[in-house]
Amino acid sequence: MNVVHLIGKKRDGAALSTAEIDWLVAAYTAGDIADYQIAALLMAIVWRGMDARETVDLTLAMVRSGAELRVRDVLSPVVDKHSTGGVGDKVTLAVAPLVAACGLPVAKMTGRGLGHTGGTVDKLESITGFRAALSRDEFLDLVRRLGLALSGQSSELAPADGKMYALRDVTATIDSIPLIAASIMSKKLAVGPSHLLLDVKVGEGAFMKTLAHARRLAKTMVSIGEDAGVRTLAVLSAMRQPLGHAVGNALELAEALAILRGEGPEDVTALCHHEAVTLLTLADVAANGKEAEARVARAISSGSALAKLAEVVAAQGGDASQVEDPTRLPAAPARQILKAPHTAYVAGIDAERVGLASVRLGAGRARKEDAIDHAVGLVLLAKVGDRVAAGQPLIEVHARTETAAKEVSAELLASYTWSDAATAPPALILGTVERPGSQARRPRIAARAAQG
Amino acid sequence: MNVVHLIGKKRDGAALSTAEIDWLVAAYTAGDIADYQIAALLMAIVWRGMDARETVDLTLAMVRSGAELRVRDVLSPVVDKHSTGGVGDKVTLAVAPLVAACGLPVAKMTGRGLGHTGGTVDKLESITGFRAALSRDEFLDLVRRLGLALSGQSSELAPADGKMYALRDVTATIDSIPLIAASIMSKKLAVGPSHLLLDVKVGEGAFMKTLAHARRLAKTMVSIGEDAGVRTLAVLSAMRQPLGHAVGNALELAEALAILRGEGPEDVTALCHHEAVTLLTLADVAANGKEAEARVARAISSGSALAKLAEVVAAQGGDASQVEDPTRLPAAPARQILKAPHTAYVAGIDAERVGLASVRLGAGRARKEDAIDHAVGLVLLAKVGDRVAAGQPLIEVHARTETAAKEVSAELLASYTWSDAATAPPALILGTVERPGSQARRPRIAARAAQG
Repeated sequence: MNVVHLIGKKRDGAALSTAEIDWLVAAYTAGDIADYQIAALLMAIVWRGMDARETVDLTLAMVRSGAELRVRDVLSPVVDKHSTGGVGDKVTLAVAPLVAACGLPVAKMTGRGLGHTGGTVDKLESITGFRAALSRDEFLDLVRRLGLALSGQSSELAPADGKMYALRDVTATIDSIPLIAASIMSKKLAVGPSHLLLDVKVGEGAFMKTLAHARRLAKTMVSIGEDAGVRTLAVLSAMRQPLGHAVGNALELAEALAILRGEGPEDVTALCHHEAVTLLTLADVAANGKEAEARVARAISSGSALAKLAEVVAAQGGDASQVEDPTRLPAAPARQILKAPHTAYVAGIDAERVGLASVRLGAGRARKEDAIDHAVGLVLLAKVGDRVAAGQPLIEVHARTETAAKEVSAELLASYTWSDAATAPPALILGTVERPGSQARRPRIAARAAQG
Repeated sequence: MNVVHLIGKKRDGAALSTAEIDWLVAAYTAGDIADYQIAALLMAIVWRGMDARETVDLTLAMVRSGAELRVRDVLSPVVDKHSTGGVGDKVTLAVAPLVAACGLPVAKMTGRGLGHTGGTVDKLESITGFRAALSRDEFLDLVRRLGLALSGQSSELAPADGKMYALRDVTATIDSIPLIAASIMSKKLAVGPSHLLLDVKVGEGAFMKTLAHARRLAKTMVSIGEDAGVRTLAVLSAMRQPLGHAVGNALELAEALAILRGEGPEDVTALCHHEAVTLLTLADVAANGKEAEARVARAISSGSALAKLAEVVAAQGGDASQVEDPTRLPAAPARQILKAPHTAYVAGIDAERVGLASVRLGAGRARKEDAIDHAVGLVLLAKVGDRVAAGQPLIEVHARTETAAKEVSAELLASYTWSDAATAPPALILGTVERPGSQARRPRIAARAAQG
């Protein structure tokens, strides 16, 4: 095969064959194709797209570029849950232990944050001693023994994706639905759950700005998952304002703990419950939504969800007392309250601006190699639809220094828009994407588990 | 400036500003931008194109990336002539000395061949001792003293183009009219003639397959040249079959020498005369076409054109006796005659297939680093429109070995198509492209020369 010929083929709008995609991914992973050639190919893919078959082929080729955990061969059902990323999105931190406490094992491998959205691993590392880098055996052992493992992304899984994503990041070739779908799904399929829930964020604060784009991405990912034998469902959820109140690593973890105690903010709590219920019914652990809701409520009221997280944190070397008592989490030395400039209804909160302000405080990374400060961030005391009076506390800034807090205050206040008329809080759950007919079909894997 | 942002800007279809293009070219030349980033940008340009202003900016930025000869500051008028490349295209070898012998200085810097088309420097290097690598001073001195220099492309001129072209070659990003135009014109403008004639080849054997594409490329290049103060004209000429009879380095040089003796094949001779006359009138060395034609005819009949080439070859270290007696040029040891398989009219000769067969014989390069064999090649004894009888000699193969000759014979015969009906020889000159209104305008540079 000739790489220049294949780049030219995609440049001219033709589909690459399965064998061609396999060869490209294997040769690139082996270092036999130069970065500049893959960069040109990636831009040609941004231009011309990839059809459904090509996208599945790319995903599977990336899966085969490294080790495969095949966690569903160890136990089944076993689920995974992935969010495309948003500001204040701590849903995974709550949903994973919630579902695990209801008896549905969760094998969660998750990335670090980059840009204006945070990463689940970064949030967990707010806990003293928490070790996200698990070996394959440790990961599988935790899933089997405790029904939950919370691991960082292993570089042994889908290494082609790691290499290609790093290249996309510096060549303006991130923005392509087939490339995004293949990147996400290759990492999920390399872990190999029986069921997968995708949370595709939509809105100004998310990568997918419109519902149409989000739906296309969701459909592509669902299709890849189902083709690979993983029962896959996507929830489309709004990211027009930050999720919940807290933005920042320890602050978001504390909010997730509040959700597990039944004391979380309304919007993010509702989304967590929705996702937990969806997972339990998807995997046939609950017979219907009503039963699932009851189990979720019980896991919270009994404290079993919180206890599950504490147990897993301890197993991964973390200080479980911080899970039980969030006041022991790292706290920022400088706190500043920003006051509402108007007496009005909150009409909007620009999630991306809030996210970038938190990065500026040190809570996130502008570049991959940046270190982050787990303690800093902010708490939004009013959300869209709330009425506030001028001078009332609006935003709590948690910073390393007073100066750092001051540097972001204008930007944070500017991220709010106001209205004199009452504004309804925006809808959070915008839709669900499943492969047509798959609702009726009880997955084989679940049937097998039922027999066992 | 941020390179990822600029790649994204072009990816989204926006025009890059002059300052952005300047920065990109300068930083890439300095090694401050990675190849993979420019590769992605190039593919985005293939996709989105560049407007006229961007294309001029790119050209000028590449000119400024290295030294500028500004030969028109040394003497004026001084012309250059460039062909976009075809199979059997030895026109420059004849036109340059022809025009110089008519008193119009020619400053010719020219490239090596790659792929199925040959390069003028390679053909000249068939002459024992010929030295194409001239210093800047040698080049200018020859132009001033003899009215002609035939130099290889200096790597000091437009180095950004050299670097970018090498990258385009391996990333399937050659095929873009603005990139092709900027690449060619940056090299021409770095030499800096007062007048420039472009021969844009059209047809299956050329890079521009259709007249519409060729016209767009010609218009773009003419516009760049005129904007930069160089009186520029493009001739569109057919490349549906190889030009003349000979394909291969020494064989093509010998055919060019035949043209200079007035004994060349009809088609290529007509094109050479047309280009020489165009250059003489363009630069106001001849008052009109008729006078120019008379001077060209005289330069041939008097032997002054041939003598001019011999003089320059000698000045560049070459054995001038080979110019006077082409039988002294290197000859291939194995010759084979391929006979016509039919009694019929030649309906077509696939120039690209013929060119690739000559590369296979060793006359050209599949890769830049390949060595070439100056002696090998082929002579087409019948062209489109000719009637041949079955068994009559059709192609003379000049090879290193009998085996090598045999290896290409089937391919060469297959490059011919036949017809029982008489076929007219195809038109060779398909059009002329000038900036509207520029015919009426006598170039300032020529006016200055007339005053001096």
